[in-house]
Parts: sequence; C-alpha cells; structure tokens
Amino acid sequence: MGIWEMDGPQGDVAVTSRVRIARNYADYAFPAALDQARKEQIAAQTGELLSGRPGFTWLRLGELDELQLRQLGENYLASPALIQNAKVAALALNEERTTGVMVNEEDHLRIQSLAAGLDLEHALGQAQQLCSDLEAQKPYAFSARWGYLTSCPTNIGTGLRASVMMHLPALTMMGKINTIIEAVGKIGLTVRGSYGEGSAVSADLYQISNQVTMGLTEKEIAASVQNACMQVMAQERLARKAMMAARPLELQDRLMRAWGAMQNARMMELKEFMRLYSDVRLAESCGYVQIHDQQAFRALLCDAQPASLQLRSGRRLSARDQNIARAELVRKCLAQ
Amino acid sequence: MGIWEMDGPQGDVAVTSRVRIARNYADYAFPAALDQARKEQIAAQTGELLSGRPGFTWLRLGELDELQLRQLGENYLASPALIQNAKVAALALNEERTTGVMVNEEDHLRIQSLAAGLDLEHALGQAQQLCSDLEAQKPYAFSARWGYLTSCPTNIGTGLRASVMMHLPALTMMGKINTIIEAVGKIGLTVRGSYGEGSAVSADLYQISNQVTMGLTEKEIAASVQNACMQVMAQERLARKAMMAARPLELQDRLMRAWGAMQNARMMELKEFMRLYSDVRLAESCGYVQIHDQQAFRALLCDAQPASLQLRSGRRLSARDQNIARAELVRKCLAQ
Repeated sequence: MGIWEMDGPQGDVAVTSRVRIARNYADYAFPAALDQARKEQIAAQTGELLSGRPGFTWLRLGELDELQLRQLGENYLASPALIQNAKVAALALNEERTTGVMVNEEDHLRIQSLAAGLDLEHALGQAQQLCSDLEAQKPYAFSARWGYLTSCPTNIGTGLRASVMMHLPALTMMGKINTIIEAVGKIGLTVRGSYGEGSAVSADLYQISNQVTMGLTEKEIAASVQNACMQVMAQERLARKAMMAARPLELQDRLMRAWGAMQNARMMELKEFMRLYSDVRLAESCGYVQIHDQQAFRALLCDAQPASLQLRSGRRLSARDQNIARAELVRKCLAQ
Repeated sequence: MGIWEMDGPQGDVAVTSRVRIARNYADYAFPAALDQARKEQIAAQTGELLSGRPGFTWLRLGELDELQLRQLGENYLASPALIQNAKVAALALNEERTTGVMVNEEDHLRIQSLAAGLDLEHALGQAQQLCSDLEAQKPYAFSARWGYLTSCPTNIGTGLRASVMMHLPALTMMGKINTIIEAVGKIGLTVRGSYGEGSAVSADLYQISNQVTMGLTEKEIAASVQNACMQVMAQERLARKAMMAARPLELQDRLMRAWGAMQNARMMELKEFMRLYSDVRLAESCGYVQIHDQQAFRALLCDAQPASLQLRSGRRLSARDQNIARAELVRKCLAQ
C-alpha cells in the first residue's frame, strides 16, 4: 500500500507529511561545478552504498520514459529539479515508496521520507536514519560553524525541509486563508500550493513548511511545523463547523453536487477533478457522504493525474481520452 | 392519476396533447361588450348546465387564493387570460382533470381536453362531446357563412386549437429547431414555447399547434397537427440517434451530470430544474438511466413549479425555500 492510500493521524485535514534532507558528499564539488562524468560517479557510488539495503529499488531516471518521469513527480517521489536532470539523476526508493534518496538534484543527495497524515516525527526519523546510514559510509560536506553545506544558502545547517500537505477547503471558502498564510509567515514558515514552490493552489491543498534550516535542531524544526499545522488544523475544523452551522444547505448543496458529478461524469478535466475532489473530501469529513473504498479515494489524488492515468491505461492518451479515462477511474472509485 | 403522470402514445417525445374549442353563447354579447353582472350570469348558467355531469368539479376562480390560481396555470388547466379574469371566471373540471370548461375567458366558453402523449383524436373526441352536450342545452353564436363566432377573428369557424407539447432536446442541441419551426410554419402550424404564446422555451418543450380554424373540419385540423407532430417526432428521434452515434460520450456526460445534480442538489432554481429535467428525460429515452417512479417523474414537470411546490408544503415559501423544497422533491422522486 502506497503512502497515498494510507490514512494517517489528523487525516481529516492533513494529507501527507514530508521531510527532505539536503546533503552533499565531502569529496565532490557542488553540483553547479560538476561535469556529467562526475555526476555519473556520484550516482554510481550512491547506488553502491544503497545496494545492500533490502527492498530498495534503484532507478536511473535516464532510463525512464517521459510518462514514468512525470508519474514520479505526480506522486511527489521526484522533485521537478530531479526530473529536469533526468539524464544523470537517480532515485532510490524503499519498498513502500515512502523513503528514498534523490541523487543529482540541486544537491548531491536529497533524502526524503513521506508519512500519511500529520506525522513529521515519523517521516523525520525515517529520513534521518537513512541519512546517517549513508554518512557512516561516506562523509558529507560539513562546516563546524554552519553545519551541513548545501548548494543554496537557504538550506545550509540542517538541510531540512519539513512540510505538510493540508486540505483547507473551509478556510479557503470563507476567505480566511490569506490571514492564515500571513500568520504562518510571521513564525518563519511558508504556505505554498500543493505542487511546491510557485505552483498554483489546487484542490484547496496547501503545503506548510519551514523556511529556516539553521539555528534549530532537526527535531525543533519538525516540531515547529507540526505545531503550526495543529493550529491551522484547529482553525480549519472550526471553519468547517461554522459553515455547517451558518449555511448548511448552501454547503451541502455544493458538496453533494460535486459528489453527483464525480459519480456520473463521463469526461473530466484535471482542473475540474481537483475542484470536485476537494469538495467530496470535505463532504466526507462533514459526514454528508460515505466513501466505501477510502484507500482508492485517497490514491485518486495521484492516480487521476495525467501521467498516472496514461500509465494505467498502458498507452499515451489524447487530452480528450485522458478526460474520459479520468472520469471512468473516478466513477469506479466511488461506485457503491 | 392526473394527465401529467400518465404515459401516452409516443411518450418518448410527445408529452401531452391538448384541444380547446372556443364558443360563445348566442344570447349574450361577446365578452368585450359585457359588464360584470352579465358575466356572472354566464358563469351561473354554465354552472347549472354542467351541474348534472357526474364527477365534475365547479370552481369559481374568485374564491381561490393566488397560489391555487397559479397552480391551475402551472397544470395547464387554466389559461393566463382566465386567471386574469379570476373575479368573474369559472372552471369546470372532470374527475381526472383532463376535460373541462373555462368560463369567461376571451370567449364565453373555452372547452378543453388534455391527453397524455400524442393523442389529439382522443382529446378532440372528449372536447367535442362536452361541447355538443352544452350546445344541446343552450345554442352557440353561429353564422352559416363563417361557422362558430369568436372574440378574436383568428378563432372563427371551428374555434379549435389543437396543440401538442413536444420534448425536442436533440433538435435543439443540434441547432436544427429553427429549421423545424420554419417548416412547420409553412404548412400553417406554429411552434411556441411550452407555456403558450410569447412564453420562452423551457426544458426544450415546444407546442405545435394549428393557426387556421376555418375551411377545415375539426378532424382535419387535428389530423394535420398530429401528422406534423409525427414528422417532427421522427426528426427528433433521428437527431437523438445521430447524437448518440456521433458524440456518445459528450452526450452521456452532459445527461449523466444532470442526473447526478438532480439526485444530489439541496437547492434548485426553477430555471435549472427545467434544464436538468429536459436532460434527464432525454437520458431516460436514450437508455442511460432508469427512472423507477415514472409517474412521479412525469408529474414533476408540474409539481416542481412555484405554486404547486408551495401548496404541497402547505405554506408560502420564500424564493430560497422554494429552491430547497424543489431540490427535495426532485431528490425524493429519483431516490432508488
């Protein structure tokens, strides 16, 4: 079962928690100064270091086709930067596809771990374990003064980014989301669209993450993000209750129509899917509908994306055929 | 069971057939020249003439409240002109509410009969029977040269208007409806929106009726309308097949979304209801959905109208509450 199918703590609001740790090997220059041959060496050496780990898969991105690459992105397993460097990039993933290493991204290594719901502690534990296992075999670039060194100064120190994908439809509908974004910004955290920096907010999914990577321990950083998420979550739950109390029929009408559209549409664009998905997820959390196959519904968020859809159908699909396949997938998922 | 619940011949396209015969008593001036006292006499005398008929109800419109009047209009039992004259107007209706007499409309009498589906012959037979029963008791204004005399010269002769309400969604969607309207016009018939002269087309319902009332027998007039309807019906069925063949998914997507909205909405404006109703009726005729309670679904066309909704709920409703009541009625009707 993949991370996207799992229910985690605070699953009514928190979708997934993610930790990534940026690291560079001490005996190589930073990526910007490396030629392709050197990057190949880094990939090969990292592959060797990981080869002993049971259950780990080793993917050379250059060997994947465009759809497979895009699917890794859709599943948040590969970053856009990794996919751009596909020629020399590699990706190690454990069996559950929750923990892995991106090689030759902006830094030599980006060790990451995902957990369902709000569970940064678990994700951090997994990532740290893998990170130190590797360090024990091959030292990282480290400065006693600054901590771990990274390509971009914003990652120096711990190299840690802890982020949580939150479903905040009620705060969005009530127009309170900007206040939340500002408040979160004041405590050194950021709120972004669900597909990372610069991505538009889709399905009312927001990523809350730390900006500061220095001056705090990894645990402190993860805890500060976790605490902020708990507070935003409380606000979102209040907003849901307030909407249910103040305008129950307007809310129910909107959410039930989304439910009806998801169960009946024969063609569905991605943009509409994301909108309906958010509404139906909220409908479920409000108790308006019962989703029988919860795992499939959670996985839908990735499965209905363009590359995943096409890989599932075993061939490239035109935009129209993607819309047809998406509607069919959604309908089957919600069939009672 | 009312006419709106019944399935009639050609029920996939034809909703109802209606015949009305305009008549004026020979011993009274025409309505434009009558004072209120005289109109009262006409109402009283007509009531007496009809008093012997078993199962007939006699309604004085002046005794009804606004909602009851509007409901008679929504059910096509009273014309807008009759409702405007409510003070002196009366309405006789048989037990099935299919045949009746409007008194003090534009003419002294408007004898009308409704039949389910395409069945002008039956409707004509019913109306003619009642018309001649009355004539046997009290003569009508008649000229050997012109035939029966009426307030408006367009009704002189037979006083007959035969009309059929047709559901023409495919011709409408394919943009062929104007060609049909022109063709029907060339053979002396007219096509109007479903709520009579000047009414906007709603739910893709059109009324096809005769314009000429002279120079033909009643049977010939009814047959010419019936024949035209058969031809339009054939066109509509071809158009449905063509749409199902050419763009099956686009059609199914639209119709199934309407089905989903009808089953799930919590608030529904009349305008949206009419649009969705048309789509779901077409979905059923295309075999995309099965409607279990066909009678209730047919009756919905009247039951979801504003006055009917309010009378059903036993009180006046705000526009918002009407939308809520309408959505609830529709949902219950389609609940499986």
